Amino acid sequence: MSLLDYFKITKVSSASVAKERLQILVAHERSFKNQPSYLPQLQKELLQVIQKYVNVGQDSISVNFEQDDHQETLEVNIVLPDNHTKKS
Amino acid sequence: MSLLDYFKITKVSSASVAKERLQILVAHERSFKNQPSYLPQLQKELLQVIQKYVNVGQDSISVNFEQDDHQETLEVNIVLPDNHTKKS
Repeated sequence: MSLLDYFKITKVSSASVAKERLQILVAHERSFKNQPSYLPQLQKELLQVIQKYVNVGQDSISVNFEQDDHQETLEVNIVLPDNHTKKS
Repeated sequence: MSLLDYFKITKVSSASVAKERLQILVAHERSFKNQPSYLPQLQKELLQVIQKYVNVGQDSISVNFEQDDHQETLEVNIVLPDNHTKKS
């Protein structure tokens, strides 16, 4: 199953919810233990980029970060407000 | 199954490969059809952010973008070179 298939499965169950959502996943497979992680800093910069495109407050953003010896995953879930599109 | 579980499953099958990998997924559930998509532009900016942290060339990056009426998904897969960490 590809990751895109995963999104296709989950969208069915969430289609009943009217709110638009934006979900960002970052997975880093690591060869070596004890490397310094740059994902927390990366997360901040990713959110800054996102906020160029959509009006979204900090309270609409939930972040989940998991780490073990071989992999780090960063999951950011954003519920978009009804009038979220920024005019350029 | 959560998206984090998906990564836990896939990392077993890819653990035999020595290369480090970075995978980024962006999924946008949309309420309305025919909205202009900002994901292609967002993709460029995300890659610029990533390249602040890791040395990675264009030939190591593969991008998959899918779009239908209700959802867009952007998948970026990066194979990191052995000496990819940038000194800050």
